[in-house]
Amino acid sequence: MHYREVQTASEYVARLETGADWRGEIESLAAEVGADAAWFTALGAVQDAELWFYDQDECEYYPIEFDEPLEVASCVGNVSLLDDDRFAHTHAVLSDDEGVAYAGHLNEATVWAGEVHMRVFEEPLEREYDDTTELDLWL
Amino acid sequence: MHYREVQTASEYVARLETGADWRGEIESLAAEVGADAAWFTALGAVQDAELWFYDQDECEYYPIEFDEPLEVASCVGNVSLLDDDRFAHTHAVLSDDEGVAYAGHLNEATVWAGEVHMRVFEEPLEREYDDTTELDLWL
Amino acid sequence: MHYREVQTASEYVARLETGADWRGEIESLAAEVGADAAWFTALGAVQDAELWFYDQDECEYYPIEFDEPLEVASCVGNVSLLDDDRFAHTHAVLSDDEGVAYAGHLNEATVWAGEVHMRVFEEPLEREYDDTTELDLWL
Repeated sequence: MHYREVQTASEYVARLETGADWRGEIESLAAEVGADAAWFTALGAVQDAELWFYDQDECEYYPIEFDEPLEVASCVGNVSLLDDDRFAHTHAVLSDDEGVAYAGHLNEATVWAGEVHMRVFEEPLEREYDDTTELDLWL
Repeated sequence: MHYREVQTASEYVARLETGADWRGEIESLAAEVGADAAWFTALGAVQDAELWFYDQDECEYYPIEFDEPLEVASCVGNVSLLDDDRFAHTHAVLSDDEGVAYAGHLNEATVWAGEVHMRVFEEPLEREYDDTTELDLWL
Repeated sequence: MHYREVQTASEYVARLETGADWRGEIESLAAEVGADAAWFTALGAVQDAELWFYDQDECEYYPIEFDEPLEVASCVGNVSLLDDDRFAHTHAVLSDDEGVAYAGHLNEATVWAGEVHMRVFEEPLEREYDDTTELDLWL
């Protein structure tokens, strides 16, 4: 169990821009407010999406693509530093016109509308390579 | 990118009443504590549900109805003012007795049990009509 | 509507240990930081999972088992006291290699990687038996 106490420096609500990239918008928000570590939850809708699934045997992500309008029923993630850049690790649950849910690691998606709550931490979080999972993990 | 820094004025945990409406209960909580802007996450179970999917071509919501018990595996949303009333914009992920997930914009659902964490912001949030999406958006 | 104002005493980010139990790790975090009441959101991936669905007629949980790697697309829950022990009430949305989502009350799951944000409340929360739902509810 690796954990760290954090202090919230500031918090924000944001509306993501229609037509922009969902994860890019969250990273832009982090950049604008100078957040090197943050936690967010969000909801909204997208025009398309690319989810990633991590193959735990191959230790590789592979993409699952959706070319249709989807609700963003849930989005949870965090901002940390990865190779000195701000990276928004973003998981999402999407749903189609029949209410069927799809979910995973959200790589990209074109925003239709998005509402985000982000809390920014005083302490930076940095990702480093983990041998066991071959993922970049923090702490 | 539209965003606003917010200050948390107070935070609450609530248990939603069995038999009441899920979204109505969240709006009642907001009314009782005088919240004109808030962010919440929640979990629980419902006895039925009406999800809405937004058709991005027609710019209209249409309903998807479920007449069976469902878990509320995730619920994320916010409270803001819409035409001077408090509106709880609520997205949810539901699941049935085989674990299959359904999701979308939650219009109504009869509470079986529900647990909510709500943080209330000092600054009000107000929704206004957006020409591009034909949705009522804030900021 | 039962609700209580809470004060956040402290907040934490944690990385769950690969190979450990997802819910057990969250309860360990609560124990290590002395949290008798907390709210958390999380994301990550697991190697298997047991979800529980609550049968509202029989008033009994029954398990749904998954023996495959799954993303944790969303996880929302809280920590409270149940018979004097810390209990992490945990709901999760999981997804498979085709992006299909499964969800429910998460009893157990073997962590592949997990990232949690937990806010600890000053006021304890205690669960007590509720006659209507036959669940242990707080407030």
